[in-house]
Amino acid sequence: MISVLVHRDGRTRRVESVDPAWLLPGAPERVWVDIELPDPAAKDLLKDVFQVHELSLEDALSEIHHPKIELFDKYLYLILHGITAGTGGKGVTTNDTDFFLGEQFLVTLHHAPSRSIRQEQDLCLRNDQALGEGPAGLLHRIVDAMVDHYRPEVDALEDRLERLEDVVFEEPRHNPVRDILALKRDVSALRRVTLPQRDAIGRLARREFSQIPDAVTYRFRDVYDHLVQLTDESLFFQDRVTGLLDAYLSSQSNRLNQVMKVLTVMSTIFMPLTVLTGLYGMNVVIPHLPGSAAVQFWWIVGMMATMSAAMLWVFRRMDWL
Amino acid sequence: MISVLVHRDGRTRRVESVDPAWLLPGAPERVWVDIELPDPAAKDLLKDVFQVHELSLEDALSEIHHPKIELFDKYLYLILHGITAGTGGKGVTTNDTDFFLGEQFLVTLHHAPSRSIRQEQDLCLRNDQALGEGPAGLLHRIVDAMVDHYRPEVDALEDRLERLEDVVFEEPRHNPVRDILALKRDVSALRRVTLPQRDAIGRLARREFSQIPDAVTYRFRDVYDHLVQLTDESLFFQDRVTGLLDAYLSSQSNRLNQVMKVLTVMSTIFMPLTVLTGLYGMNVVIPHLPGSAAVQFWWIVGMMATMSAAMLWVFRRMDWL
Amino acid sequence: MISVLVHRDGRTRRVESVDPAWLLPGAPERVWVDIELPDPAAKDLLKDVFQVHELSLEDALSEIHHPKIELFDKYLYLILHGITAGTGGKGVTTNDTDFFLGEQFLVTLHHAPSRSIRQEQDLCLRNDQALGEGPAGLLHRIVDAMVDHYRPEVDALEDRLERLEDVVFEEPRHNPVRDILALKRDVSALRRVTLPQRDAIGRLARREFSQIPDAVTYRFRDVYDHLVQLTDESLFFQDRVTGLLDAYLSSQSNRLNQVMKVLTVMSTIFMPLTVLTGLYGMNVVIPHLPGSAAVQFWWIVGMMATMSAAMLWVFRRMDWL
Amino acid sequence: MISVLVHRDGRTRRVESVDPAWLLPGAPERVWVDIELPDPAAKDLLKDVFQVHELSLEDALSEIHHPKIELFDKYLYLILHGITAGTGGKGVTTNDTDFFLGEQFLVTLHHAPSRSIRQEQDLCLRNDQALGEGPAGLLHRIVDAMVDHYRPEVDALEDRLERLEDVVFEEPRHNPVRDILALKRDVSALRRVTLPQRDAIGRLARREFSQIPDAVTYRFRDVYDHLVQLTDESLFFQDRVTGLLDAYLSSQSNRLNQVMKVLTVMSTIFMPLTVLTGLYGMNVVIPHLPGSAAVQFWWIVGMMATMSAAMLWVFRRMDWL
Amino acid sequence: MISVLVHRDGRTRRVESVDPAWLLPGAPERVWVDIELPDPAAKDLLKDVFQVHELSLEDALSEIHHPKIELFDKYLYLILHGITAGTGGKGVTTNDTDFFLGEQFLVTLHHAPSRSIRQEQDLCLRNDQALGEGPAGLLHRIVDAMVDHYRPEVDALEDRLERLEDVVFEEPRHNPVRDILALKRDVSALRRVTLPQRDAIGRLARREFSQIPDAVTYRFRDVYDHLVQLTDESLFFQDRVTGLLDAYLSSQSNRLNQVMKVLTVMSTIFMPLTVLTGLYGMNVVIPHLPGSAAVQFWWIVGMMATMSAAMLWVFRRMDWL
Repeated sequence: MISVLVHRDGRTRRVESVDPAWLLPGAPERVWVDIELPDPAAKDLLKDVFQVHELSLEDALSEIHHPKIELFDKYLYLILHGITAGTGGKGVTTNDTDFFLGEQFLVTLHHAPSRSIRQEQDLCLRNDQALGEGPAGLLHRIVDAMVDHYRPEVDALEDRLERLEDVVFEEPRHNPVRDILALKRDVSALRRVTLPQRDAIGRLARREFSQIPDAVTYRFRDVYDHLVQLTDESLFFQDRVTGLLDAYLSSQSNRLNQVMKVLTVMSTIFMPLTVLTGLYGMNVVIPHLPGSAAVQFWWIVGMMATMSAAMLWVFRRMDWL
Repeated sequence: MISVLVHRDGRTRRVESVDPAWLLPGAPERVWVDIELPDPAAKDLLKDVFQVHELSLEDALSEIHHPKIELFDKYLYLILHGITAGTGGKGVTTNDTDFFLGEQFLVTLHHAPSRSIRQEQDLCLRNDQALGEGPAGLLHRIVDAMVDHYRPEVDALEDRLERLEDVVFEEPRHNPVRDILALKRDVSALRRVTLPQRDAIGRLARREFSQIPDAVTYRFRDVYDHLVQLTDESLFFQDRVTGLLDAYLSSQSNRLNQVMKVLTVMSTIFMPLTVLTGLYGMNVVIPHLPGSAAVQFWWIVGMMATMSAAMLWVFRRMDWL
Repeated sequence: MISVLVHRDGRTRRVESVDPAWLLPGAPERVWVDIELPDPAAKDLLKDVFQVHELSLEDALSEIHHPKIELFDKYLYLILHGITAGTGGKGVTTNDTDFFLGEQFLVTLHHAPSRSIRQEQDLCLRNDQALGEGPAGLLHRIVDAMVDHYRPEVDALEDRLERLEDVVFEEPRHNPVRDILALKRDVSALRRVTLPQRDAIGRLARREFSQIPDAVTYRFRDVYDHLVQLTDESLFFQDRVTGLLDAYLSSQSNRLNQVMKVLTVMSTIFMPLTVLTGLYGMNVVIPHLPGSAAVQFWWIVGMMATMSAAMLWVFRRMDWL
Repeated sequence: MISVLVHRDGRTRRVESVDPAWLLPGAPERVWVDIELPDPAAKDLLKDVFQVHELSLEDALSEIHHPKIELFDKYLYLILHGITAGTGGKGVTTNDTDFFLGEQFLVTLHHAPSRSIRQEQDLCLRNDQALGEGPAGLLHRIVDAMVDHYRPEVDALEDRLERLEDVVFEEPRHNPVRDILALKRDVSALRRVTLPQRDAIGRLARREFSQIPDAVTYRFRDVYDHLVQLTDESLFFQDRVTGLLDAYLSSQSNRLNQVMKVLTVMSTIFMPLTVLTGLYGMNVVIPHLPGSAAVQFWWIVGMMATMSAAMLWVFRRMDWL
Repeated sequence: MISVLVHRDGRTRRVESVDPAWLLPGAPERVWVDIELPDPAAKDLLKDVFQVHELSLEDALSEIHHPKIELFDKYLYLILHGITAGTGGKGVTTNDTDFFLGEQFLVTLHHAPSRSIRQEQDLCLRNDQALGEGPAGLLHRIVDAMVDHYRPEVDALEDRLERLEDVVFEEPRHNPVRDILALKRDVSALRRVTLPQRDAIGRLARREFSQIPDAVTYRFRDVYDHLVQLTDESLFFQDRVTGLLDAYLSSQSNRLNQVMKVLTVMSTIFMPLTVLTGLYGMNVVIPHLPGSAAVQFWWIVGMMATMSAAMLWVFRRMDWL
């Protein structure tokens, strides 16, 4: 699906096709072509009208997982990645968007619908100046929107992290290790996505490319700043997830200590009592305790109570109870 | 809230507004404008009088978490961060301060009251030479004060660390893992704040910018030195916190060993005794031990005592008691 | 075994031997010599006809485990590595392939049959243009095929990883640590193989060598991109394998807790009961419980049932059951 | 306390004060001023006579924890650190020494008595050539002595490490974790001290500064070599200390296994015996074993012995004993 | 012990002393002086005849643990290290060999007998061309032999590693942690030795030094390749050793689980039986089970068997047996 916006004579309109004259050096028009799900017509357009190099064409048509900035004679070729909410917190899925930035045109190409591009198209149609400002400014706004869309994903990760921390520290009834490891993977996936984006945007912010005027370069620094903060946060999350594992292991071992203390206290109290009842159950002449035959039983029960109390006192002294 | 200090004719006075003439090249005045909680008037002042670039203006008005040094035509734009004591040891919160350093002026902009800036204002009004010396020296003194305010935060972290070490090594009754992990996060937050500050200040100390005369550059080296030491300390803390976790885990496992030894010793002593009393409690003809019927019981008790003593001797030999 | 393909007059044919005239500067022929299991004849060919330097000849005849790119006067010498499926998932075995890339010729040399080279030979014989395009394009296609053959190996590793994850998280009856460590080794072996390949290919993609025209350089970027992704994946696998170990250890400790709880619950219930039966088994006058002699037994059993129920209720309250 | 040594006319003498004429360019004198515990007089001397920059003066008067090399117009300013034996193996304490190296003079400044400087003073007074050789050579000898004094500290750390290894591997009765962590901190403190010293000395060894003639540069390489070795050793110690923690944890877990085996063996043997005696103690008609009433008891004891022997045999087969 | 070989007029002979004329620029002789255990005579020879700088002389006479390459006016000074088999697998001991490489001479100096140098001497005497080729080629061959002698040491480490893996995975009766840590240290010692050798040789392979002709430079690349592989292997070993520790810890914890299951199963089966026998042993009127008095006993035994069987069935269901 090809959608063409052109800015001429101070107005931005949606048109059906690209007039090659608009791309001639010095032409006053500014063109934005957005291609969603490239079809052969789109391919021909890129090749014939925009004279895109065969190799960047190939890259654009396939899924590339690494951001790329390549300078060609007539355009700057960029691959950047947005992230979309995985259903059920299933981590981070990226969708690559290709940009061909010329002096007078911007071509965007993506395989799935893109919120950022949709927003920008609406803006361009509402505000004639948006496209009139030139393709670099347009690129900046799209990329800025893409990076803004990272925020909810990062927040979702933090939510999961906090929920897991509650589970580990407060009620670790079920084994949360699988969830912790899944979160860890998602966090490091996020970092692996944002880090190269950051570096790519950083290059755009360094006045390296003639297609991007200095004023726009400055603006890219802000996007860069956002990405720096995102990578920082994901690094911070990674520390927290790692700490979570340690915490869970230590809580496990704490719990085991607790269980073993109960067992030990019980055994230490009842095993001597068993021996005592065994003693008085032996089929031998048993020495009389003071008092009548009827109070013998209570003497023994008294001895047992005294022994138990003494044991409990010792355990309390040892800080076990 | 805008507060303007101007140094002219050898005296520093607080004035109501900035005269654009003071900013003309070669003007003898030295101006310091401090903006707390920027309002539209402050924004206009920056834009119209100081001709601040729109982008650094945007940065200045929003919260930026990374220090920044950007050279513009008319000024050097800096973002640096102070830290303030979190209530209840809740870690490190940063507050960014923006600096616009020109040849003849310094503009500081912050969103919360700043101790360092308050101190410096008082100094400037008391001592005419403080502002007369030029805006770079002023910048140095403010930054120096900001970095000095890191010290109590670092000391508070060390206090928490030492208290936790006492808990872990001496009386680990409650599980300190959550506290350890919280401290770990705070320590690494501190490092993440100080590290980029250090690098930013390091650039100021390298004679890179014409706005900062060599004499002031030298002084920034001292600030840099402070930050090097702070980052060093935070790294050292990180090692200690990590060691704390290991220590706690090992103390846990030590304790478990202790508990299990008690259980094993008790079981090993009392289980044979139970069998012995069981034997003499059987309803079969029981072989007579030497002596009269009345001493049989004491023979058995004697056997039990001997067995227990032997066991205890063995356990002592095995170093369990 | 030497196999020679020559492209002349627009046609590619398999010939018996190399005519040195084809290698003269400006000769229109394009030659591809493939040497499998080099014999003395092959050695002489390389030395005498292609004037290969003695040192790269030595390298080519021995097994080298590191990729290499060395520029000689007449050719570019490359060592790159393919990987072949280890039987039974026994990790990664590499086979080095040597390339001598001249302006007009390509010599490939390998010690074991190579799928990638076989494929390319078939293609060259089917499609005259394949060799006619020049030796650099040929090199690219062979290397591309070699890198494509990494994919199934990586997938096999992922399969093993997933199977182990199932074992650890769902039914860890046997100790999977040996398998986990073996997988870890294989994954890091993969990374150690792919990483230097990536760097070597990266150099080919940087217009560094005159033997490789710019158009082919672009194509090498795609191969580089593939390898970047492979190394990324292997890094990701490494994280997952490490997580697996942690998960197994925590599941172990979980299980131990479970076992100890059962033991403690059983002991806590039955040890008091034993003491109770012991009490009533003593050879002393036992106090009468209410009711006739016949119901005494049931009174005691009732007491035991009550005690057990109370204990179970306590344990349920403590969340142990 | 200021001590001045001057070399003139081929002789080195101790004098009371510095004659500014000695510092004029081309003057034949060589001067060494050592300042211990700087007082106002020393400060004036540095400022007025040696024209030390205010900033390096400030640095010199305060305690700086990082080595520094700063080139000023008239001198090279150095901060290097010696280490002194902490009492009771309490780790590493550094004392900073400041050096001002000019063409004709060396000023050393320190806050505590320094063995290295005392030695060198004695040498200079004994051997006229020592100071006559020039201040750079003097600097080299002092620094060399300072680095030599690291050796006993490193040896003391190794001693502690070896004693701890004995404790962990041979008789870990008390919990050595606190000692291990303390040693770990000391070792990493040592590394943190030596590493920057090494880098600073490395710069002195690189012919970077005109104040240091090439011949002396060569000699600094030896000092550098020493420091390389020291940092290597401290890295090696760090590995060993880390291994120690692992070893202690594994020995803990080993011991626990041992304890639990004893408990399990005892329980497995005695619990069935208890049931057996219980059976024959029941108040029901008990089936006769072969033989007379008198041998019944021995039949039962024989059964018990057989059962115990069988159990022990099983446990031995399972490698538990 | 000084041994001098000289190549003149196409022949290599062993001579008694060095003729300084051989070292004059343009002299046709090629000289190799090997010094084992340097004595004063050797020192004088180096100083007077070869004009070795005092500092490299000092280095040569002492033990240096870091490889070094230093370019002097008349020669290239190298320190490289061989490794020798420690008796009883006691790790890696290095012996440093010093090389003074001039245009026409090579001086080797070592403190212990060297296999590599002995071999090369024999070769030189057998083959006149060996020395005639020049000192750089000679240096290459000696270094190549030194590096070849690393191989058996690496193989010995791998053997120890494999034996330990067998112990850990198959029959970990004794605690292998001490051996594992010792191996770990040896492996990392190996890496610490090989890594700087690799880097030093890498510099020799980079055409950096005029004393080494290009042809020899190429050959050093092969040595470099060997060392790259050795360091790779030692890195790989390090991974395996670390894995071994993890494996041992997990096997420990596995074993503990096993032991605890046995205990729990035994207790769970026998404790209820004890209570049952206790019940029927009480001195109260015991309710009659169906049948005659003589079968009461068997009824009870039957109940016990049923209970035990039920328990066992439950445990099997829980996968504990």
